[in-house]
Amino acid sequence: MFRKVKILLGILFCLVNSIKAQEHPNLILTQEGVEQIRENLGKVPFFDSYLKEIKAEVDAEIETGIHVPIPKDMAGGYTHERHKKNFLILQKAGVLFQILEDQIYADYVKEVLMEYARIYKTLPIHPQPRSYARGKIFWQCLNDSNWLVYVSQAYDCIYNTLSKKEISHLENDLFRPYADYISSGNPQYFNRIHNHSTWGNAAVGMIGLVMQDEELIQRALYGLKQDGIETNAKDNDGGFIKDEGGKAGFLANIEAPFSPEGYYTEAPYYQRYAMYPYLLFAVGLNNMRPREKIFEYKDGVLLKAVNTLLNLTDSDGEFYPLNDAQKGMSYFSRELVSAVDIAYHYGDQNSGLLSIAKKQGKLTLDDAGFAVAKAIADGETKPFVKQSMELTDGPLGKQGGISILRSGSQEEELNLVAKYSAHGNSHGHYDKLSFSLYYRGDEVLQDYGLARFVNIDQKNGGGYLKENTSWAKQTIAHNTLVVNEISHFNGTYETGSQFHSHKYFSILSDDGNQLISAKENNAYPGVKMHRTLLMIEDKRLDNPLVLDIFKVDSQNKNQYDLPYHYFGQIMSTSFPLESQSTLLPLGENNGYQHLWLRSKGKNGKSINQMSWFSSGTFRTLTMLNSPEDEFLFTELGANDAEFNLRTDPSFIIRRKNTAATLFVNAVEIHGNYSPVSEIAINATSSLKNIKTILDTKEYTAVSIELTRGAPIQVILSNQNPNESQNHSVEINGKTTRWTGPYLIQTIKE
Amino acid sequence: MFRKVKILLGILFCLVNSIKAQEHPNLILTQEGVEQIRENLGKVPFFDSYLKEIKAEVDAEIETGIHVPIPKDMAGGYTHERHKKNFLILQKAGVLFQILEDQIYADYVKEVLMEYARIYKTLPIHPQPRSYARGKIFWQCLNDSNWLVYVSQAYDCIYNTLSKKEISHLENDLFRPYADYISSGNPQYFNRIHNHSTWGNAAVGMIGLVMQDEELIQRALYGLKQDGIETNAKDNDGGFIKDEGGKAGFLANIEAPFSPEGYYTEAPYYQRYAMYPYLLFAVGLNNMRPREKIFEYKDGVLLKAVNTLLNLTDSDGEFYPLNDAQKGMSYFSRELVSAVDIAYHYGDQNSGLLSIAKKQGKLTLDDAGFAVAKAIADGETKPFVKQSMELTDGPLGKQGGISILRSGSQEEELNLVAKYSAHGNSHGHYDKLSFSLYYRGDEVLQDYGLARFVNIDQKNGGGYLKENTSWAKQTIAHNTLVVNEISHFNGTYETGSQFHSHKYFSILSDDGNQLISAKENNAYPGVKMHRTLLMIEDKRLDNPLVLDIFKVDSQNKNQYDLPYHYFGQIMSTSFPLESQSTLLPLGENNGYQHLWLRSKGKNGKSINQMSWFSSGTFRTLTMLNSPEDEFLFTELGANDAEFNLRTDPSFIIRRKNTAATLFVNAVEIHGNYSPVSEIAINATSSLKNIKTILDTKEYTAVSIELTRGAPIQVILSNQNPNESQNHSVEINGKTTRWTGPYLIQTIKE
Repeated sequence: MFRKVKILLGILFCLVNSIKAQEHPNLILTQEGVEQIRENLGKVPFFDSYLKEIKAEVDAEIETGIHVPIPKDMAGGYTHERHKKNFLILQKAGVLFQILEDQIYADYVKEVLMEYARIYKTLPIHPQPRSYARGKIFWQCLNDSNWLVYVSQAYDCIYNTLSKKEISHLENDLFRPYADYISSGNPQYFNRIHNHSTWGNAAVGMIGLVMQDEELIQRALYGLKQDGIETNAKDNDGGFIKDEGGKAGFLANIEAPFSPEGYYTEAPYYQRYAMYPYLLFAVGLNNMRPREKIFEYKDGVLLKAVNTLLNLTDSDGEFYPLNDAQKGMSYFSRELVSAVDIAYHYGDQNSGLLSIAKKQGKLTLDDAGFAVAKAIADGETKPFVKQSMELTDGPLGKQGGISILRSGSQEEELNLVAKYSAHGNSHGHYDKLSFSLYYRGDEVLQDYGLARFVNIDQKNGGGYLKENTSWAKQTIAHNTLVVNEISHFNGTYETGSQFHSHKYFSILSDDGNQLISAKENNAYPGVKMHRTLLMIEDKRLDNPLVLDIFKVDSQNKNQYDLPYHYFGQIMSTSFPLESQSTLLPLGENNGYQHLWLRSKGKNGKSINQMSWFSSGTFRTLTMLNSPEDEFLFTELGANDAEFNLRTDPSFIIRRKNTAATLFVNAVEIHGNYSPVSEIAINATSSLKNIKTILDTKEYTAVSIELTRGAPIQVILSNQNPNESQNHSVEINGKTTRWTGPYLIQTIKE
Repeated sequence: MFRKVKILLGILFCLVNSIKAQEHPNLILTQEGVEQIRENLGKVPFFDSYLKEIKAEVDAEIETGIHVPIPKDMAGGYTHERHKKNFLILQKAGVLFQILEDQIYADYVKEVLMEYARIYKTLPIHPQPRSYARGKIFWQCLNDSNWLVYVSQAYDCIYNTLSKKEISHLENDLFRPYADYISSGNPQYFNRIHNHSTWGNAAVGMIGLVMQDEELIQRALYGLKQDGIETNAKDNDGGFIKDEGGKAGFLANIEAPFSPEGYYTEAPYYQRYAMYPYLLFAVGLNNMRPREKIFEYKDGVLLKAVNTLLNLTDSDGEFYPLNDAQKGMSYFSRELVSAVDIAYHYGDQNSGLLSIAKKQGKLTLDDAGFAVAKAIADGETKPFVKQSMELTDGPLGKQGGISILRSGSQEEELNLVAKYSAHGNSHGHYDKLSFSLYYRGDEVLQDYGLARFVNIDQKNGGGYLKENTSWAKQTIAHNTLVVNEISHFNGTYETGSQFHSHKYFSILSDDGNQLISAKENNAYPGVKMHRTLLMIEDKRLDNPLVLDIFKVDSQNKNQYDLPYHYFGQIMSTSFPLESQSTLLPLGENNGYQHLWLRSKGKNGKSINQMSWFSSGTFRTLTMLNSPEDEFLFTELGANDAEFNLRTDPSFIIRRKNTAATLFVNAVEIHGNYSPVSEIAINATSSLKNIKTILDTKEYTAVSIELTRGAPIQVILSNQNPNESQNHSVEINGKTTRWTGPYLIQTIKE
């Protein structure tokens, strides 16, 4: 009896589903959504004005005619850029047809699709041989998938205007073979855990949904059953193709790379790129297969990921350039426009997202974008408040992570980004325990990002440059410790991918002192690294003091290089400078070959300072030094015959011939100067000394002396991060007692 | 009879004058002005809001008490910055007293002045020995004069609140000895033609006006009659102290440095600095001595100079950094706020100035500022439209000049600034026939500016750095020709000051092709230089083409270096690069010692290209080369032990062992790229060839071939700039006829 009911319900469900399915559009735009939009035209200013903008863009493009050239160029070249423009315009034209009910848009989409259908089946594989998975329209399957993700939306929008014959022609001669080519035709591309495959999965799934092709939908969700890929196969970026668990498909691509908080292991630049197929296919599934409950999958991680991405930006909305990342990419990108609209509409209508949408000045012209525009018109906008936060890495959140420490107002904020995550797949860098620092949206201590000019043809066809491996991925390119001029894990992907750092403890808040402490024991055999980064609030300082306590444990003597990748003009140093009359590279490999040694210094004192000026403020690094410490001023650009690198400066503290040791450094951002007022305010440091009070296996204690008032004392428990653990140490004959892994106090003497 | 009437009229005039004079305030603020302001409080939003801002600033400062420390520090140090703050606040407090009629401000001004009066007479000369004219309050008389220019305004504002005894004390113990010290006490400072002296003249004149001290007023206007300065005496900057004509005083300082159009020979950075005393003393004279007709002096040059200064800015309002100039200084400076308000009120009420005042967001709290705020409230604002213009140099406009070629809208504009002026006194650079190029407010081809961090104590007390002489002033630091690695006039001020370049002809317009052609025959003995810079409009190009035709005539063989000081990342070169594995300075002196040679190239072809990317657009230099031409890529920073220089890149075309020659180079700004869209548009050059068609003493003709369409032919008459002269040349057997010094035509073949 129960079984019969179940079957009946199943049939009913399928019927409802198939009826719903025939109600095109239904993938991203829905019939109800379109009706609501049409009824409100002229009433929602943001939507209307953006619609007008898009209409003008598409109208201008339609004017130029149909352009479907035979593919031949790399990124940046004509055929590549033309086919890219086609899919972007087709998606918009489809939407315009639905909203404005003007046949001209449907006709345009149909004509272009017919042209693709005419050539597709006979197209050879793209002539450019650079990819591990070559496409047909573009040089790689990845771009072919981009095309299908966009074009399946256009097809859905005009579906109802097509005759059965036209539908059959488009599906048999274009869409089905297209979907097959990027999936079963290229399993090494389709069947993996990677942002590339997510695009492939979504492309196949979205066209599958529009075509109601169950085979394609299953393939998209669960991957190819048989892929014949060898276990050690690698892609162009040197990443493994085969997932350890052997899983593939869209759901597996949600499962593996996202941590529970929605941090994507490849880091924000690629997360941004992947969010479009993740979210668009998810919206399609939500609309056409609500039973998948895709937005609830893995505890709702897809929508959480949008919030995570928005928090992984500086004050200007630019993503922190962790791992391979092109600087300047921001939440103003088209992927984030749709992500914000979708997260608002399909999520919990967080009114903070509306302020981001307003800044973006763009919308998706669909149910989600309309909901956003309507809510803004209704005055529901609230500020999007970014907070200090911890993002774990790994599918279960157990592979270290990223912590963001924020202080100050949204526009004037100081952000410290600490990285103690897993490697991050093929786009990962050898940067364990690295950090970067931002002030008012500018980089104070930078992460280099990637060595690539994405889509700029002159620079290696827009692809990765060899300096991405030789410099950008190397440890010395990051603000973290390099032992014996060798990168972490000896720069070996296979090794690096096996390990992750461990968070030791963290204190994150938007008020008061903040700390992130993490350990890394695998990057160098026999060397244990423990770094604690603090943001200490003190009214005597213009901004929170960034204190960097880096404890190194080793039985063997090593050379330690601790770089600070600053930007700006050196103002003063407490030590004499030995300017170099001839410039030579600092080393021979692991990134050192790219650094010119411009100047160095050494003076045997235990406390030293280096001040510089950038973006209207002064910055000072105050160092606790060993007598033999050397200070190296370098500049990028050696062994860079093609001018592929930026000529950025760096400052390196070098400590040779040392086993276990402690680095204590403080970074102040102080004062200001404007070339308009020509008045220098607070141009010098407020620190006058740093002392180690205690440094044992169990405890590290330092005292920071300011130019006025009492010193700040910081004590760290090195071996027990327990919040409720009681500690006591004797310092200068006086016993100090506290609870938890740290104590920060101002000592009145 | 006539004589008697004259005397009577004279007496009457003096009486009226002295009555008027007793009506304090009368120097900058006037009684009528103050009444009008008081009546309109709360009615003129811009004035009200800015008044509120200043009130808050002054109130906060008064809260901190009175600070008149014994002088001891250099610029950037405490006593310097404190006394500077004092005079700025005193001026504001005086104004607040007049407008708000709150005794607290008058009391504050009085108390501070009494404190100065208490110490002044016994103050020794300032302990810092760096200046050729040391002050008492500051390290140089210049800053002492700044103080008096501001403080005389404050004194005028509270004059009526003081008792006769107080007035007598302040004048006898502070103001008169103060004015004497900076004038008769320092004739080498006061009695010259220089911005320093203008400050001195204005200071003495303004306090003279308030005190009604005719001797001081005469001294201010006409200088000291006897100064005892030797003819060859020089100041700290190496400039001559004694003017050739032996003239001095305020009027002579208007006469000599300004050209008829109001270009100031020291260039805009110092013009900006000097405009404050020029205009404030002028307003004082206008109010208290209308018979001087100061705003009509030299055909109204003082107010013309404001318009000139505003036109000497890029799209962001920043001054072109000609001669010694700190980059970033702009029309947002306090000197320009008063200049704009004064030019509006005392000039012809140019409503374009209101838009600048709005952008500035600041006002002078006096008659002029009120007039501006009122006009803005009345909706009279119009855009300030900058135009292509020629500014002659020299008192009579006969010492060469500057031409600014502009194209495009105000925010998207391309500016070419060509310099063929006189040397520019002690702040001049050896940069004959140099030019700089700006796009959207960014530098495409830069003028380095100065080597100094004004008022930043860590950098040589905020004063000029030695690299200002060894680099910034040298010819190689500019976009102009260097012969045999020697600077123009052998870098000798005495020689450089004797000569100026000559304009040959110019075509300036805001529509169509623009040209500036100039000649320099004295910079190098035996070498004649003739440079023609063109901005050619062509619909096939994104922006006007900048064409640089540099003709060199010499009997002897020389080495020619033509640098292009670009900014940004190299994208591609048409020639192979010989990257340097060890960096060495390019030369030994004349600025070459500061350039690291990073890479070079040579390939024997007659046409070469170098493309780079900066600020969102691509730029390409297309060169017509001799087979032996070398291409040098340099970077600044060699022999710069203190990190005083920026590490800017340069590109140098080197042609060795050549007598007469022709350089033809074209600069394109094309396409765009954003890291947010990651789409590269028009990333490559639209030029494919440059050919010399003809190059004789009389004519130079070149053909610019684009990648599509017909070539552009440019013919220049080299020896006759007459507009109505008919010319004919035979090119490829075909006779071309035209009238005037040039012909630009597109040749359909």
